[in-house]
Amino acid sequence: MARDGTATRTKIMDAAEALTLDHGFSASSVDRIIERAGVTKGSFFYHFDSKAALARALVERYAAADLEHLEGNMARAEALSRDPLQQLIIFVGLFREAAEALTEPYPGCLFSSYIHESGLMDSAILDIIQVTIDRWRKRVGDKIDRAAALHPPRLPVDLASLADMLTVIFEGAFIVSKVMKDPRTVAQQLDHYRNYLELLFAPADTRTDDTRREVGLDA
Amino acid sequence: MARDGTATRTKIMDAAEALTLDHGFSASSVDRIIERAGVTKGSFFYHFDSKAALARALVERYAAADLEHLEGNMARAEALSRDPLQQLIIFVGLFREAAEALTEPYPGCLFSSYIHESGLMDSAILDIIQVTIDRWRKRVGDKIDRAAALHPPRLPVDLASLADMLTVIFEGAFIVSKVMKDPRTVAQQLDHYRNYLELLFAPADTRTDDTRREVGLDA
Repeated sequence: MARDGTATRTKIMDAAEALTLDHGFSASSVDRIIERAGVTKGSFFYHFDSKAALARALVERYAAADLEHLEGNMARAEALSRDPLQQLIIFVGLFREAAEALTEPYPGCLFSSYIHESGLMDSAILDIIQVTIDRWRKRVGDKIDRAAALHPPRLPVDLASLADMLTVIFEGAFIVSKVMKDPRTVAQQLDHYRNYLELLFAPADTRTDDTRREVGLDA
Repeated sequence: MARDGTATRTKIMDAAEALTLDHGFSASSVDRIIERAGVTKGSFFYHFDSKAALARALVERYAAADLEHLEGNMARAEALSRDPLQQLIIFVGLFREAAEALTEPYPGCLFSSYIHESGLMDSAILDIIQVTIDRWRKRVGDKIDRAAALHPPRLPVDLASLADMLTVIFEGAFIVSKVMKDPRTVAQQLDHYRNYLELLFAPADTRTDDTRREVGLDA
Protein backbone atom coordinates (compact mmCIF):
# COMPACT_ATOMS: atom_id res chain seq x y z
CA MET A 1 0.00 0.00 0.00
CA ALA A 2 1.29 3.47 -0.84
CA ARG A 3 2.36 5.78 1.96
CA ASP A 4 -0.70 7.98 1.40
CA GLY A 5 -2.99 4.96 1.63
CA THR A 6 -1.54 3.97 4.99
CA ALA A 7 -1.87 7.52 6.30
CA THR A 8 -5.56 7.64 5.28
CA ARG A 9 -6.23 4.25 6.83
CA THR A 10 -4.63 5.44 10.08
CA LYS A 11 -6.60 8.69 9.97
CA ILE A 12 -9.88 6.76 9.64
CA MET A 13 -8.93 4.41 12.47
CA ASP A 14 -7.89 7.25 14.78
CA ALA A 15 -11.13 9.15 14.13
CA ALA A 16 -13.22 6.01 14.67
CA GLU A 17 -11.41 5.15 17.88
CA ALA A 18 -11.82 8.63 19.38
CA LEU A 19 -15.49 8.68 18.38
CA THR A 20 -16.10 5.21 19.84
CA LEU A 21 -14.49 6.18 23.17
CA ASP A 22 -16.79 9.19 23.37
CA HIS A 23 -20.06 8.00 21.82
CA GLY A 24 -19.78 4.20 21.76
CA PHE A 25 -19.69 1.81 18.82
CA SER A 26 -23.31 2.02 17.76
CA ALA A 27 -23.44 5.81 17.45
CA SER A 28 -20.13 5.93 15.55
CA SER A 29 -21.66 5.69 12.09
CA VAL A 30 -19.58 5.62 8.91
CA ASP A 31 -20.90 9.12 8.12
CA ARG A 32 -19.70 10.52 11.44
CA ILE A 33 -16.36 8.74 11.14
CA ILE A 34 -15.58 10.09 7.65
CA GLU A 35 -16.70 13.56 8.71
CA ARG A 36 -14.34 13.48 11.68
CA ALA A 37 -11.49 11.95 9.65
CA GLY A 38 -12.03 14.38 6.77
CA VAL A 39 -12.09 11.64 4.13
CA THR A 40 -14.62 10.61 1.48
CA LYS A 41 -16.97 7.65 1.74
CA GLY A 42 -15.19 6.13 -1.26
CA SER A 43 -11.91 6.33 0.59
CA PHE A 44 -13.48 4.71 3.66
CA PHE A 45 -14.79 1.75 1.68
CA TYR A 46 -11.48 1.43 -0.18
CA HIS A 47 -9.87 0.67 3.19
CA PHE A 48 -12.68 -1.14 5.03
CA ASP A 49 -15.44 -3.39 3.69
CA SER A 50 -17.81 -2.39 6.48
CA LYS A 51 -18.07 -0.76 9.89
CA ALA A 52 -17.69 -4.26 11.37
CA ALA A 53 -14.38 -4.73 9.51
CA LEU A 54 -13.19 -1.38 10.87
CA ALA A 55 -14.18 -2.39 14.41
CA ARG A 56 -12.19 -5.58 14.01
CA ALA A 57 -9.13 -3.65 12.76
CA LEU A 58 -9.47 -1.20 15.68
CA VAL A 59 -9.60 -3.90 18.33
CA GLU A 60 -6.64 -5.72 16.75
CA ARG A 61 -4.56 -2.53 16.77
CA TYR A 62 -5.63 -1.75 20.35
CA ALA A 63 -4.81 -5.28 21.55
CA ALA A 64 -1.38 -5.19 19.86
CA ALA A 65 -0.51 -1.86 21.54
CA ASP A 66 -1.82 -3.18 24.86
CA LEU A 67 0.34 -6.31 24.72
CA GLU A 68 3.32 -4.18 23.69
CA HIS A 69 2.86 -2.16 26.91
CA LEU A 70 2.59 -5.38 28.89
CA GLU A 71 5.71 -6.98 27.40
CA GLY A 72 7.70 -3.76 27.15
CA ASN A 73 7.21 -2.76 30.77
CA MET A 74 7.73 -6.33 31.99
CA ALA A 75 11.03 -6.53 30.09
CA ARG A 76 12.12 -3.19 31.59
CA ALA A 77 11.15 -4.36 35.09
CA GLU A 78 13.04 -7.63 34.59
CA ALA A 79 16.13 -5.68 33.59
CA LEU A 80 15.83 -3.38 36.62
CA SER A 81 15.72 -6.04 39.33
CA ARG A 82 16.53 -9.71 39.85
CA ASP A 83 13.79 -10.34 42.42
CA PRO A 84 10.34 -11.24 41.04
CA LEU A 85 8.51 -9.23 43.74
CA GLN A 86 10.59 -6.15 42.96
CA GLN A 87 10.04 -6.73 39.24
CA LEU A 88 6.30 -6.79 39.87
CA ILE A 89 6.42 -3.61 41.93
CA ILE A 90 8.58 -1.86 39.32
CA PHE A 91 6.25 -3.08 36.54
CA VAL A 92 3.23 -1.47 38.24
CA GLY A 93 5.35 1.61 38.95
CA LEU A 94 6.17 2.04 35.25
CA PHE A 95 2.46 2.14 34.37
CA ARG A 96 1.92 4.51 37.28
CA GLU A 97 4.65 6.79 35.93
CA ALA A 98 2.89 6.97 32.54
CA ALA A 99 -0.51 7.53 34.18
CA GLU A 100 0.89 10.34 36.30
CA ALA A 101 1.69 12.30 33.16
CA LEU A 102 -2.02 12.53 32.27
CA THR A 103 -3.44 16.03 32.36
CA GLU A 104 -6.98 15.13 31.28
CA PRO A 105 -9.36 12.44 32.53
CA TYR A 106 -8.57 9.10 30.91
CA PRO A 107 -10.29 8.94 27.51
CA GLY A 108 -11.44 5.34 28.09
CA CYS A 109 -10.61 1.84 26.92
CA LEU A 110 -11.74 0.49 23.56
CA PHE A 111 -12.15 -3.01 25.01
CA SER A 112 -14.48 -1.63 27.63
CA SER A 113 -16.49 0.36 25.05
CA TYR A 114 -17.00 -2.79 22.98
CA ILE A 115 -17.86 -4.92 26.02
CA HIS A 116 -20.57 -2.43 26.97
CA GLU A 117 -22.20 -3.10 23.61
CA SER A 118 -21.26 -6.78 23.53
CA GLY A 119 -24.72 -7.74 22.25
CA LEU A 120 -23.84 -5.96 18.99
CA MET A 121 -20.30 -7.30 18.60
CA ASP A 122 -18.89 -10.09 16.43
CA SER A 123 -17.72 -12.99 18.55
CA ALA A 124 -14.30 -12.57 16.88
CA ILE A 125 -13.97 -9.14 18.51
CA LEU A 126 -15.00 -10.44 21.93
CA ASP A 127 -12.50 -13.31 21.52
CA ILE A 128 -9.64 -10.87 20.87
CA ILE A 129 -10.51 -8.96 24.05
CA GLN A 130 -10.69 -12.17 26.08
CA VAL A 131 -7.38 -13.49 24.72
CA THR A 132 -5.67 -10.17 25.46
CA ILE A 133 -6.90 -10.05 29.05
CA ASP A 134 -5.91 -13.68 29.44
CA ARG A 135 -2.35 -12.78 28.32
CA TRP A 136 -2.16 -10.19 31.12
CA ARG A 137 -3.51 -12.78 33.57
CA LYS A 138 -0.83 -15.30 32.57
CA ARG A 139 2.14 -12.90 32.31
CA VAL A 140 1.40 -11.01 35.54
CA GLY A 141 0.19 -14.24 37.19
CA ASP A 142 3.45 -16.01 36.42
CA LYS A 143 5.39 -13.18 38.04
CA ILE A 144 3.08 -13.26 41.07
CA ASP A 145 3.60 -17.02 41.41
CA ARG A 146 7.36 -16.55 41.43
CA ALA A 147 7.11 -13.68 43.93
CA ALA A 148 4.85 -15.78 46.19
CA ALA A 149 7.27 -18.72 46.09
CA LEU A 150 10.05 -16.51 47.45
CA HIS A 151 7.91 -14.28 49.70
CA PRO A 152 4.98 -16.23 51.17
CA PRO A 153 1.85 -14.04 51.23
CA ARG A 154 0.82 -12.77 54.64
CA LEU A 155 -2.85 -13.63 54.02
CA PRO A 156 -4.18 -16.63 52.15
CA VAL A 157 -5.02 -15.25 48.66
CA ASP A 158 -6.11 -16.45 45.26
CA LEU A 159 -3.11 -15.61 43.06
CA ALA A 160 -4.88 -15.80 39.66
CA SER A 161 -7.46 -13.18 40.65
CA LEU A 162 -4.66 -11.08 42.15
CA ALA A 163 -3.16 -10.94 38.63
CA ASP A 164 -6.58 -10.00 37.18
CA MET A 165 -6.81 -7.23 39.77
CA LEU A 166 -4.43 -5.11 37.68
CA THR A 167 -6.84 -5.25 34.71
CA VAL A 168 -9.76 -4.63 37.08
CA ILE A 169 -8.04 -1.54 38.45
CA PHE A 170 -7.16 -0.16 35.02
CA GLU A 171 -10.71 -0.62 33.72
CA GLY A 172 -12.40 0.68 36.87
CA ALA A 173 -10.02 3.63 37.20
CA PHE A 174 -10.65 4.69 33.58
CA ILE A 175 -14.38 4.88 34.37
CA VAL A 176 -14.01 6.74 37.68
CA SER A 177 -11.49 9.12 36.08
CA LYS A 178 -14.06 9.94 33.40
CA VAL A 179 -17.02 10.30 35.79
CA MET A 180 -15.15 12.45 38.30
CA LYS A 181 -13.26 14.35 35.56
CA ASP A 182 -10.03 13.65 37.45
CA PRO A 183 -6.77 12.88 35.60
CA ARG A 184 -5.11 11.58 38.80
CA THR A 185 -7.38 8.56 39.32
CA VAL A 186 -5.41 5.97 37.33
CA ALA A 187 -2.05 6.73 39.00
CA GLN A 188 -3.66 6.81 42.46
CA GLN A 189 -5.35 3.45 41.98
CA LEU A 190 -2.16 1.85 40.64
CA ASP A 191 -0.50 3.13 43.80
CA HIS A 192 -3.01 1.19 45.89
CA TYR A 193 -2.42 -1.97 43.86
CA ARG A 194 1.31 -1.60 44.41
CA ASN A 195 0.80 -1.02 48.14
CA TYR A 196 -1.31 -4.15 48.34
CA LEU A 197 1.39 -6.25 46.65
CA GLU A 198 4.01 -4.82 48.99
CA LEU A 199 1.97 -5.43 52.14
CA LEU A 200 1.00 -8.91 51.00
CA PHE A 201 4.44 -10.18 50.00
CA ALA A 202 7.08 -8.04 51.66
CA PRO A 203 8.93 -9.82 54.48
CA ALA A 204 6.74 -9.36 57.56
CA ASP A 205 9.47 -8.51 60.07
CA THR A 206 11.43 -5.90 58.11
CA ARG A 207 8.30 -4.18 56.86
CA THR A 208 6.78 -4.06 60.28
CA ASP A 209 9.86 -2.47 61.84
CA ASP A 210 10.30 0.04 59.03
CA THR A 211 6.71 1.15 58.80
CA ARG A 212 6.10 1.13 62.52
CA ARG A 213 8.86 3.68 62.78
CA GLU A 214 7.55 5.53 59.74
CA VAL A 215 4.02 5.98 61.08
CA GLY A 216 5.28 6.66 64.59
CA LEU A 217 4.07 3.47 66.26
CA ASP A 218 7.50 2.95 67.80
CA ALA A 219 7.71 6.39 69.33
CA MET B 1 -51.47 6.35 38.60
CA ALA B 2 -53.38 3.08 38.52
CA ARG B 3 -51.67 -0.14 39.55
CA ASP B 4 -51.63 -1.30 35.91
CA GLY B 5 -49.94 1.92 34.84
CA THR B 6 -47.14 1.46 37.36
CA ALA B 7 -46.64 -2.15 36.27
CA THR B 8 -46.33 -1.11 32.61
CA ARG B 9 -43.92 1.68 33.47
CA THR B 10 -41.76 -0.79 35.41
CA LYS B 11 -41.93 -3.31 32.56
CA ILE B 12 -40.68 -0.68 30.09
CA MET B 13 -37.89 0.39 32.44
CA ASP B 14 -36.78 -3.19 33.09
CA ALA B 15 -36.70 -4.00 29.37
CA ALA B 16 -34.77 -0.81 28.58
CA GLU B 17 -32.26 -1.43 31.36
CA ALA B 18 -31.54 -5.01 30.27
CA LEU B 19 -31.23 -3.91 26.64
CA THR B 20 -28.90 -1.04 27.57
CA LEU B 21 -26.62 -3.34 29.59
CA ASP B 22 -26.33 -5.66 26.60
CA HIS B 23 -26.37 -3.32 23.58
CA GLY B 24 -25.66 0.13 25.00
CA PHE B 25 -27.85 3.22 25.07
CA SER B 26 -27.65 4.18 21.42
CA ALA B 27 -28.74 0.80 20.04
CA SER B 28 -31.62 0.56 22.53
CA SER B 29 -34.22 2.20 20.30
CA VAL B 30 -37.81 2.80 21.39
CA ASP B 31 -38.88 0.13 18.90
CA ARG B 32 -36.59 -2.49 20.40
CA ILE B 33 -37.57 -1.50 23.94
CA ILE B 34 -41.32 -1.83 23.33
CA GLU B 35 -40.78 -5.12 21.49
CA ARG B 36 -38.85 -6.51 24.45
CA ALA B 37 -41.30 -5.11 27.00
CA GLY B 38 -44.30 -6.32 25.00
CA VAL B 39 -46.07 -2.94 25.12
CA THR B 40 -47.41 -0.60 22.44
CA LYS B 41 -45.72 2.57 21.29
CA GLY B 42 -48.73 4.50 22.60
CA SER B 43 -48.18 3.00 26.01
CA PHE B 44 -44.45 3.91 25.89
CA PHE B 45 -45.17 7.55 25.11
CA TYR B 46 -47.89 7.68 27.73
CA HIS B 47 -45.20 6.95 30.32
CA PHE B 48 -42.17 8.68 28.80
CA ASP B 49 -41.93 11.79 26.64
CA SER B 50 -38.81 10.53 24.88
CA LYS B 51 -35.99 8.02 25.03
CA ALA B 52 -33.96 10.70 26.85
CA ALA B 53 -36.67 10.97 29.54
CA LEU B 54 -36.59 7.18 29.94
CA ALA B 55 -32.78 7.23 30.27
CA ARG B 56 -33.11 9.85 32.99
CA ALA B 57 -35.72 7.77 34.84
CA LEU B 58 -33.50 4.68 34.53
CA VAL B 59 -30.42 6.38 35.94
CA GLU B 60 -32.44 7.87 38.80
CA ARG B 61 -33.86 4.45 39.72
CA TYR B 62 -30.40 2.87 39.43
CA ALA B 63 -28.78 5.55 41.60
CA ALA B 64 -31.50 5.22 44.26
CA ALA B 65 -31.00 1.44 44.45
CA ASP B 66 -27.24 1.92 44.54
CA LEU B 67 -27.40 4.36 47.44
CA GLU B 68 -29.82 2.04 49.24
CA HIS B 69 -27.19 -0.72 49.03
CA LEU B 70 -24.55 1.69 50.30
CA GLU B 71 -26.60 2.94 53.25
CA GLY B 72 -28.24 -0.42 54.00
CA ASN B 73 -24.98 -2.34 54.20
CA MET B 74 -23.25 0.45 56.10
CA ALA B 75 -26.06 0.49 58.68
CA ARG B 76 -25.80 -3.30 59.04
CA ALA B 77 -22.01 -3.11 59.42
CA GLU B 78 -22.36 -0.36 62.03
CA ALA B 79 -24.78 -2.55 63.99
CA LEU B 80 -22.43 -5.54 63.81
CA SER B 81 -19.31 -3.92 65.24
CA ARG B 82 -18.29 -0.88 67.26
CA ASP B 83 -14.86 -0.49 65.62
CA PRO B 84 -14.74 1.56 62.37
CA LEU B 85 -12.12 -0.74 60.79
CA GLN B 86 -14.23 -3.81 61.52
CA GLN B 87 -17.32 -1.97 60.24
CA LEU B 88 -15.46 -1.28 56.99
CA ILE B 89 -14.34 -4.89 56.65
CA ILE B 90 -17.85 -6.17 57.39
CA PHE B 91 -19.31 -3.63 54.93
CA VAL B 92 -17.11 -4.97 52.10
CA GLY B 93 -17.87 -8.52 53.25
CA LEU B 94 -21.62 -7.95 52.91
CA PHE B 95 -21.19 -6.93 49.26
CA ARG B 96 -18.89 -9.91 48.80
CA GLU B 97 -21.58 -12.18 50.22
CA ALA B 98 -24.11 -10.90 47.67
CA ALA B 99 -21.57 -11.15 44.82
CA GLU B 100 -20.75 -14.74 45.79
CA ALA B 101 -24.34 -15.74 45.09
CA LEU B 102 -23.94 -14.82 41.39
CA THR B 103 -24.18 -17.78 39.04
CA GLU B 104 -23.76 -15.81 35.80
CA PRO B 105 -21.20 -13.17 34.79
CA TYR B 106 -22.19 -9.77 36.13
CA PRO B 107 -24.68 -8.17 33.72
CA GLY B 108 -22.96 -4.78 33.92
CA CYS B 109 -23.52 -1.38 35.47
CA LEU B 110 -25.92 1.17 34.00
CA PHE B 111 -23.65 4.04 35.09
CA SER B 112 -20.78 2.48 33.21
CA SER B 113 -22.92 1.91 30.08
CA TYR B 114 -23.91 5.56 30.06
CA ILE B 115 -20.36 6.77 30.73
CA HIS B 116 -19.14 4.79 27.72
CA GLU B 117 -21.52 6.83 25.56
CA SER B 118 -21.08 10.03 27.54
CA GLY B 119 -20.86 12.11 24.37
CA LEU B 120 -24.54 11.29 23.77
CA MET B 121 -25.79 11.85 27.30
CA ASP B 122 -27.61 14.77 28.91
CA SER B 123 -25.41 16.52 31.41
CA ALA B 124 -28.19 15.89 33.97
CA ILE B 125 -27.58 12.15 33.64
CA LEU B 126 -23.82 12.52 33.99
CA ASP B 127 -24.39 14.72 37.06
CA ILE B 128 -26.50 12.03 38.75
CA ILE B 129 -23.73 9.47 38.19
CA GLN B 130 -21.10 11.84 39.56
CA VAL B 131 -23.17 12.73 42.64
CA THR B 132 -23.81 9.05 43.36
CA ILE B 133 -20.13 8.09 43.13
CA ASP B 134 -19.30 11.09 45.28
CA ARG B 135 -21.73 9.82 47.95
CA TRP B 136 -19.81 6.50 48.03
CA ARG B 137 -16.54 8.43 48.26
CA LYS B 138 -17.79 10.47 51.22
CA ARG B 139 -19.57 7.66 53.13
CA VAL B 140 -16.79 5.08 52.71
CA GLY B 141 -14.15 7.81 53.05
CA ASP B 142 -15.57 8.96 56.37
CA LYS B 143 -15.38 5.39 57.68
CA ILE B 144 -11.81 5.05 56.39
CA ASP B 145 -10.83 8.31 58.13
CA ARG B 146 -12.21 7.00 61.42
CA ALA B 147 -10.47 3.64 60.94
CA ALA B 148 -7.17 5.38 60.14
CA ALA B 149 -7.42 7.57 63.23
CA LEU B 150 -7.61 4.47 65.44
CA HIS B 151 -5.35 2.20 63.39
CA PRO B 152 -2.57 4.20 61.72
CA PRO B 153 -1.93 2.86 58.18
CA ARG B 154 1.24 0.85 57.72
CA LEU B 155 2.11 2.67 54.49
CA PRO B 156 1.52 6.35 53.70
CA VAL B 157 -1.69 6.35 51.59
CA ASP B 158 -4.14 8.77 50.09
CA LEU B 159 -7.36 8.00 52.00
CA ALA B 160 -9.82 9.64 49.55
CA SER B 161 -8.64 7.50 46.64
CA LEU B 162 -8.70 4.45 48.92
CA ALA B 163 -12.43 5.08 49.33
CA ASP B 164 -12.82 5.45 45.54
CA MET B 165 -11.01 2.13 45.13
CA LEU B 166 -14.20 0.30 46.10
CA THR B 167 -16.05 1.90 43.17
CA VAL B 168 -13.05 1.25 40.92
CA ILE B 169 -13.08 -2.43 41.89
CA PHE B 170 -16.82 -2.80 41.37
CA GLU B 171 -16.70 -1.19 37.91
CA GLY B 172 -13.56 -2.99 36.80
CA ALA B 173 -14.72 -6.36 38.13
CA PHE B 174 -18.04 -6.07 36.28
CA ILE B 175 -16.12 -5.65 33.03
CA VAL B 176 -13.64 -8.47 33.64
CA SER B 177 -16.50 -10.74 34.80
CA LYS B 178 -18.26 -10.09 31.49
CA VAL B 179 -15.16 -10.50 29.29
CA MET B 180 -13.98 -13.69 30.99
CA LYS B 181 -17.55 -14.99 31.41
CA ASP B 182 -16.77 -15.68 35.07
CA PRO B 183 -19.38 -15.14 37.80
CA ARG B 184 -16.74 -15.29 40.57
CA THR B 185 -14.81 -12.16 39.57
CA VAL B 186 -16.70 -9.61 41.66
CA ALA B 187 -16.49 -11.59 44.92
CA GLN B 188 -12.79 -12.37 44.33
CA GLN B 189 -11.91 -8.74 43.71
CA LEU B 190 -13.85 -7.57 46.76
CA ASP B 191 -11.80 -10.11 48.71
CA HIS B 192 -8.61 -8.41 47.57
CA TYR B 193 -9.94 -4.99 48.57
CA ARG B 194 -10.80 -6.35 52.01
CA ASN B 195 -7.34 -7.93 52.32
CA TYR B 196 -5.73 -4.62 51.44
CA LEU B 197 -7.73 -2.78 54.10
CA GLU B 198 -6.81 -5.42 56.66
CA LEU B 199 -3.11 -5.39 55.82
CA LEU B 200 -3.03 -1.61 55.73
CA PHE B 201 -4.83 -0.89 58.99
CA ALA B 202 -4.74 -3.98 61.18
CA PRO B 203 -2.45 -3.63 64.19
CA ALA B 204 1.00 -4.60 62.90
CA ASP B 205 2.03 -6.78 65.86
CA THR B 206 -1.09 -8.94 66.24
CA ARG B 207 -1.54 -9.43 62.52
CA THR B 208 2.06 -10.32 62.02
CA ASP B 209 2.00 -12.97 64.72
CA ASP B 210 -1.29 -14.48 63.57
CA THR B 211 -0.50 -14.58 59.90
CA ARG B 212 3.11 -15.62 60.36
CA ARG B 213 1.78 -18.70 62.08
CA GLU B 214 -0.94 -19.10 59.45
CA VAL B 215 1.40 -19.12 56.48
CA GLY B 216 3.94 -21.20 58.37
CA LEU B 217 6.63 -18.55 58.78
CA ASP B 218 6.92 -19.30 62.49
CA ALA B 219 7.39 -23.04 62.09
